[in-house]
Amino acid sequence: MNRTLGVCYYPEHWPEAQWAEDAQRMADLGLTWVRIGEFAWKRMEPREGEYDWGWLDRAIDVLGAAGLKVVLGTPTATPPKWVCKKHPDMFAVDENGHVRGYGSRRHYCFSHQGFLEESCKIVRAMAERYGRDPHVAAWQTDNEYGCHDTVLSYSDAARDGFRDWLRAQFPGEGNDGDIDALNAAWGNVFWSMDYDDFDEIGLPNLTVTEANPAHVHAFRRFSSEQVVLFNRVQAEIIRQFSDAPIAHNYMGRVTEFDHFKVGDDLDIASWDSYPLGFLEDRVGADAAHQRAYARQGDPDFQAFHHDLYRAVGKGRWWIMEQQPGPVNWAPYNPSPLPGMVRLWSWEAFAHGAEAVCYFRWRQAPFAQEQMHAGLLRPDSVEAEAFGEAAEVMAELAEAPEVSPVQAPVAIVFDYDADWAWSVQPHGAGLSYFGLVFDWYRACRKLGLSVDILPPDARDFAGYALVLAPGMMHMPDELKSALQNADAEVIFGPRAAARDVDFNIPTPLPPAWPGSDLTVARVQSMRPDLPVPVQGGGAVSRYLEQLEGGGDVVMTTDDGAPIAVRCAPHVTYVGGWGDDAVHMRLIETLVPALEVDRMPEGVRRRDTATERFWFNYSDRPMQVGGRDMPPAGVSRQTL
Amino acid sequence: MNRTLGVCYYPEHWPEAQWAEDAQRMADLGLTWVRIGEFAWKRMEPREGEYDWGWLDRAIDVLGAAGLKVVLGTPTATPPKWVCKKHPDMFAVDENGHVRGYGSRRHYCFSHQGFLEESCKIVRAMAERYGRDPHVAAWQTDNEYGCHDTVLSYSDAARDGFRDWLRAQFPGEGNDGDIDALNAAWGNVFWSMDYDDFDEIGLPNLTVTEANPAHVHAFRRFSSEQVVLFNRVQAEIIRQFSDAPIAHNYMGRVTEFDHFKVGDDLDIASWDSYPLGFLEDRVGADAAHQRAYARQGDPDFQAFHHDLYRAVGKGRWWIMEQQPGPVNWAPYNPSPLPGMVRLWSWEAFAHGAEAVCYFRWRQAPFAQEQMHAGLLRPDSVEAEAFGEAAEVMAELAEAPEVSPVQAPVAIVFDYDADWAWSVQPHGAGLSYFGLVFDWYRACRKLGLSVDILPPDARDFAGYALVLAPGMMHMPDELKSALQNADAEVIFGPRAAARDVDFNIPTPLPPAWPGSDLTVARVQSMRPDLPVPVQGGGAVSRYLEQLEGGGDVVMTTDDGAPIAVRCAPHVTYVGGWGDDAVHMRLIETLVPALEVDRMPEGVRRRDTATERFWFNYSDRPMQVGGRDMPPAGVSRQTL
Amino acid sequence: MNRTLGVCYYPEHWPEAQWAEDAQRMADLGLTWVRIGEFAWKRMEPREGEYDWGWLDRAIDVLGAAGLKVVLGTPTATPPKWVCKKHPDMFAVDENGHVRGYGSRRHYCFSHQGFLEESCKIVRAMAERYGRDPHVAAWQTDNEYGCHDTVLSYSDAARDGFRDWLRAQFPGEGNDGDIDALNAAWGNVFWSMDYDDFDEIGLPNLTVTEANPAHVHAFRRFSSEQVVLFNRVQAEIIRQFSDAPIAHNYMGRVTEFDHFKVGDDLDIASWDSYPLGFLEDRVGADAAHQRAYARQGDPDFQAFHHDLYRAVGKGRWWIMEQQPGPVNWAPYNPSPLPGMVRLWSWEAFAHGAEAVCYFRWRQAPFAQEQMHAGLLRPDSVEAEAFGEAAEVMAELAEAPEVSPVQAPVAIVFDYDADWAWSVQPHGAGLSYFGLVFDWYRACRKLGLSVDILPPDARDFAGYALVLAPGMMHMPDELKSALQNADAEVIFGPRAAARDVDFNIPTPLPPAWPGSDLTVARVQSMRPDLPVPVQGGGAVSRYLEQLEGGGDVVMTTDDGAPIAVRCAPHVTYVGGWGDDAVHMRLIETLVPALEVDRMPEGVRRRDTATERFWFNYSDRPMQVGGRDMPPAGVSRQTL
Repeated sequence: MNRTLGVCYYPEHWPEAQWAEDAQRMADLGLTWVRIGEFAWKRMEPREGEYDWGWLDRAIDVLGAAGLKVVLGTPTATPPKWVCKKHPDMFAVDENGHVRGYGSRRHYCFSHQGFLEESCKIVRAMAERYGRDPHVAAWQTDNEYGCHDTVLSYSDAARDGFRDWLRAQFPGEGNDGDIDALNAAWGNVFWSMDYDDFDEIGLPNLTVTEANPAHVHAFRRFSSEQVVLFNRVQAEIIRQFSDAPIAHNYMGRVTEFDHFKVGDDLDIASWDSYPLGFLEDRVGADAAHQRAYARQGDPDFQAFHHDLYRAVGKGRWWIMEQQPGPVNWAPYNPSPLPGMVRLWSWEAFAHGAEAVCYFRWRQAPFAQEQMHAGLLRPDSVEAEAFGEAAEVMAELAEAPEVSPVQAPVAIVFDYDADWAWSVQPHGAGLSYFGLVFDWYRACRKLGLSVDILPPDARDFAGYALVLAPGMMHMPDELKSALQNADAEVIFGPRAAARDVDFNIPTPLPPAWPGSDLTVARVQSMRPDLPVPVQGGGAVSRYLEQLEGGGDVVMTTDDGAPIAVRCAPHVTYVGGWGDDAVHMRLIETLVPALEVDRMPEGVRRRDTATERFWFNYSDRPMQVGGRDMPPAGVSRQTL
Repeated sequence: MNRTLGVCYYPEHWPEAQWAEDAQRMADLGLTWVRIGEFAWKRMEPREGEYDWGWLDRAIDVLGAAGLKVVLGTPTATPPKWVCKKHPDMFAVDENGHVRGYGSRRHYCFSHQGFLEESCKIVRAMAERYGRDPHVAAWQTDNEYGCHDTVLSYSDAARDGFRDWLRAQFPGEGNDGDIDALNAAWGNVFWSMDYDDFDEIGLPNLTVTEANPAHVHAFRRFSSEQVVLFNRVQAEIIRQFSDAPIAHNYMGRVTEFDHFKVGDDLDIASWDSYPLGFLEDRVGADAAHQRAYARQGDPDFQAFHHDLYRAVGKGRWWIMEQQPGPVNWAPYNPSPLPGMVRLWSWEAFAHGAEAVCYFRWRQAPFAQEQMHAGLLRPDSVEAEAFGEAAEVMAELAEAPEVSPVQAPVAIVFDYDADWAWSVQPHGAGLSYFGLVFDWYRACRKLGLSVDILPPDARDFAGYALVLAPGMMHMPDELKSALQNADAEVIFGPRAAARDVDFNIPTPLPPAWPGSDLTVARVQSMRPDLPVPVQGGGAVSRYLEQLEGGGDVVMTTDDGAPIAVRCAPHVTYVGGWGDDAVHMRLIETLVPALEVDRMPEGVRRRDTATERFWFNYSDRPMQVGGRDMPPAGVSRQTL
Repeated sequence: MNRTLGVCYYPEHWPEAQWAEDAQRMADLGLTWVRIGEFAWKRMEPREGEYDWGWLDRAIDVLGAAGLKVVLGTPTATPPKWVCKKHPDMFAVDENGHVRGYGSRRHYCFSHQGFLEESCKIVRAMAERYGRDPHVAAWQTDNEYGCHDTVLSYSDAARDGFRDWLRAQFPGEGNDGDIDALNAAWGNVFWSMDYDDFDEIGLPNLTVTEANPAHVHAFRRFSSEQVVLFNRVQAEIIRQFSDAPIAHNYMGRVTEFDHFKVGDDLDIASWDSYPLGFLEDRVGADAAHQRAYARQGDPDFQAFHHDLYRAVGKGRWWIMEQQPGPVNWAPYNPSPLPGMVRLWSWEAFAHGAEAVCYFRWRQAPFAQEQMHAGLLRPDSVEAEAFGEAAEVMAELAEAPEVSPVQAPVAIVFDYDADWAWSVQPHGAGLSYFGLVFDWYRACRKLGLSVDILPPDARDFAGYALVLAPGMMHMPDELKSALQNADAEVIFGPRAAARDVDFNIPTPLPPAWPGSDLTVARVQSMRPDLPVPVQGGGAVSRYLEQLEGGGDVVMTTDDGAPIAVRCAPHVTYVGGWGDDAVHMRLIETLVPALEVDRMPEGVRRRDTATERFWFNYSDRPMQVGGRDMPPAGVSRQTL
């Protein structure tokens, strides 16, 4: 499949007279894709049941006539005022009980049935009209599920839905669930929390002290499921009328819903990549790191999501929105270092992207994102990113094809585990995402390409190393599959620490088949109290006391084991190591890997036929004898 | 006009038997003014329509008999319980939707019509009774508008008022406004935010992500207007019955309403100067600065407000409340360095004050401000400030007259710009007030006296330098007036960055008449990533990319222009410089100014006939060959 | 009385088949006590009026049969769902007006009369059934009053109760109170806050700026009283049916209610000691201290509470819950240093504890506290603490007796003063508890044993030194008693700074009998601006200006007096000193004390017949020629 470029465009924002010129400039730039429509509900359906398709017909025609393929977005992320007036209780409610009302976007509760019906209606109307339009080459459902913390809602609709969902989780006789089963599963006896009826169950907010973690975790699962269902309904409607592939544009570090499950209902995964905004807002790096990469972004954050969404899309994935310059929403919004837009684009292709679409064509001079750069300035003059996109376009001639290949290393990523850590971090600031990302960075610093796998992966053929850190609930089938895999396996900490109902299982974790390795005690520690590890590096913030098991692979300076064999090819790590610890473990345990410690800020990625290097630092670097300028990209045919 | 002293007094707090002695001691101290009445609504009107004037008659008589002139305050900042019971929805509502209820002060929403009527009634009753009283020599409306963040209210009353205000802003046919015009002006198409009716418009709080900045900015303008109207009604009523001048006592760094517009309805501007409390709470200085000036206050904060309120009062201004010792409300409440009460008083006179009134006569042993020092201790013994006030009184014999003069430098201060920056700071912590204050400080460190001008100033005759930093909306008339001025003009960054509806104009800013200078891109940056400037100093936090224009006046070390000529006498600055950058720009661009770099903590100020130096540092300093002790004041006749 | 050990157990959490084995293991370990029942309301009364005692009967029988004595807890801290459905307004309301609802524990408002009645019913039912049970050897009321900030509630029930309480405080004619008296006492004239009726008085939350401190302080007193009444009713019911002693398990640094007054209705004081959780969460130490003692706990925090609750229990006190390993609720939850469980146990005995009960027998694998260690792991294997408890048990053979003795030093602790400081800290972070704790630590660093006394103590015979820091309200009777005491007395700052209605008295504080010492002015200061004291050390954060009085005992480097004699044996301290200042004052003023400066982290405590040393540091220390390992305990017979 070809590597392509595209752009996000809002015809409704501009005079119709300008559309043709815009389309021609897009085509001249070499763009393939133009995404439109995803915020235009009010323009499509100004009043309930009154549709106005004329402008959209004409916009699609103009764009198509210029040779562009349209990605058409359903506009459910921005319900117009009339929808909200009709359903005054459709809003999400925050943890403090405040209604998250009208006036921006994503102002709906995923559990609200009335809003779901309105969404179905507009999606069906769009699909009916454009399902067979030759210019509509792909669809996008909604926009950035979960953005602005919109997965969790403490509304009445969510509460009612949660009760019904629990009834189904704990089925009883007749129509009702088995409340005793729920009480037993959650350990509600603990503080006299037993319910007599599912209708007594509330949402786990505004409690005096922490709610039962089983309760909270169930609510997290329910909330994720609501997103899956909301998306599925849209995809099913579109498929009735269209054969074009369907995508959703995910965000970075949104973990409140299971992207794998949403992805199961879609054809393509895509995501919106804002490296500078994310570094300020979501990576969680320290000030020194934020300074060093302020104009480049974190060297691993984009790559991680590329690999994650490649898995979510079962191989097919795009960048739906690529940051083209300063944005409007981060605490600080610097300009990218010259060359970074090109680097980010090529990095996506190196990780297997089929398309990179820049957000947005022209900077809007009005409303919330007026400070968000585009390929064009508000006065239609080319902005910096325009030139870099043109450069990428030119370079694609030499490397036009997506040619993915299995990586030597796999990391299992489990959204359920992220919820579990979030429900019960045990130590301030501990997060599953953070742990997995630390392991991912260690691999990348060793020059390794990585595949991310869903938690239901059972086939690990072809991998030299499988990493499964922090999976608090670890089904027996996964343990067996890993035990039977040819790969070296590294897992833990907190592996299998909870059963499916968020209880500590007996025998104690990790309960590996054939091993008596036992986590006898766990502790979390102040970040400023790292525990040094023999051979260098340290474990910090989280540390387990391990008993039993096989060979001790690594210990603290005091001799306490922190990495222990459960099987000849399976190692449990009972703590949160730093890069030095993680890298040494990988090097020691998997000597077969072709490891190459990268210079500061440089990363490497292989496709089937190419080796890429990316210089995220703001200084020149040497890699394999070649000089790389800041923001440099090197490509070598293998 | 004579320089006078005064004091704030609360006869209702003390036994009537004590009034005469208090009045005599005030008179013996040499005080001219005594402000009373502004919190005594419950004493004046204990129950609706039942007035009790006897005590106030006697208090005014006693004070007047001692030779004091009374400033009589309207008591609308403290509505009694019966008012609140009658109007249970009169309270302001905070951004989270919580009612800001009864139990302290300022518990009213400026938009509540019922409360407005109650206010009119008590003001009219007071004005009728005391309008011709020979002892009532001035009036004060309400107390400290905006204190405790009381300008913005998210109440139903505010929402209804906002809708009507918008109808007037976007007039349509008949009684209703033109909703399409509003939608177009705000760019509501952006996220399907178009309204069909003004009654659909809500307040911009509790949205899922940020509300439309045009929406927020309009609400800020509306909210300011409500204060103006509230005050105007009081002033108009008083004027029906009295010829005495009317003042309001403003606060420090309250920017939520347009003081110039409130001032247009009054005769005198006054403000409440709490240098130590402000340094802890509002200046925004770093810890080192807060330590260095903990017992003196920021060396420029008071002066800035003196100059600002001199402009607000069109030349006539007072200190209505002068901090006399430790206060009760700041995070830390240290004692002023000995001599500072004298210094603060003289500094006010040097900036043209007609009166300095100390707050308060005697420390109250009860209620919220029991830890607030007065001229007397609670046991009526003289506190420290009493002696310093006496010293000032003695010194006034030598310099009895207010003799203002135009300063060589003018700075335009635009409340609307402060709202605009606040609505869209673009970088964490960026504020218009902060930017203007930085420029003000640079002038003062050069020994320059400064006038502050309102944004509708068009006559700049007599100024050598006009500074207009950060005016996000800059009317064409102002641009023309500055272009035609004889003064050197320095403006930017973000100048003219928005049109009147908060949209980015085309051609791009600053769109200076006759210049093609263009802000091509803007970025905000982490505060720990300053960009060095050629010749010393740095730009930090906010930086624009400038294209076109005339001579480059200053560049970064990398050669990027940061100050560029738009005209031979007009310079645009595209970043946020430090003191070194600002001072060098002034020195370089306006060699005609009589500049003198002040020693640390020393400031200079000229009147028509005098030159003053003030030593805000806690160490002795040398100025012009003279020694100044800590807290020292030097006066030299010109 | 014998020194005993015990454990907390939840038979309802485990299969009945396991009870007997558990009981036998407890008995084999040597435990005396087993506390049960305090969260099992739903098991005891599954539906209103339907009691199920069978399981509890059997549990008590099984435990009793093993030789254990049962402490039976009333379960009112965990009302079941049916209670909450019956009384939907029984929940506390937080300061923001949010209901603190069902789903964890302590979800009730102390002022709710309906819930109080439900509590009485279940307590009466339990007392009737088990009051004469030979195995029930003690009672516990509720659980951890005030935990999770549950004393202050802004509910309608609290508001109504507060109004009635105020009527009783300001009694008038007939059934109503004297509202004028209240207005006068509170100084409501200040901001027109006078009320016409008690029913106009609201709770002091959600005001625009701070409420009247007299109002807030009265609400604090009322809130404390509600806890006292709630507990008293339970104790009175139990006493009707049982002769066993009644205890409550208090927490660490919960100061929102007066423990002395609750204690007056009980036979034994007990507390729940979580040294590591408290260090992270409540001690308020800096990062260096938190690092140094992360695995040991603060060296003085436990001892302080031991001494405090010994006073609350009038000599009889227990540890009802002793931390046995990592807990679940602190920001970080490290493992105790090996030996610390033993140290903590012995330290309690050294301070006079009759019993130390470990919390809990077995780690629960479910619900909120699943990460809270026990003596057993969830798989019933012995956890670390089991061995240390066994070690203590063995050592008790040598020192079986509680043998208290009066300490040479007494510190008065006054909950009312803590409320007063909290209502009006005057400087950010200032707290009465913190001040008293600083003085306590100074004593302990000098090797001194300390008794804590209630504020109504009047007999100081036998003490060499009485410390009474920070008592903002200081009754004349206390002043007289201290003036007439044989002990050296050190008091202040802020002593007698307020009268009973929270007004500043005249003559000004401290108004010591026979002394003209006057606090002329007070200031609070940034923590980074300490004021050096002659002879070393510094005063910081709070400093008074003292006038008059007798000999100056200590001055700042600038010569300002900070410690001044009010009488030959009475010294007023007008500031917040550091350890150096406090220790030097004690050493200088009371040479008769047997002072011994302890090595870092080592503390000393005497009983009537023994001298103990405890090494809280993580390094070996030398004390009196003996080596103490980390976590070491030394006992020497006197």
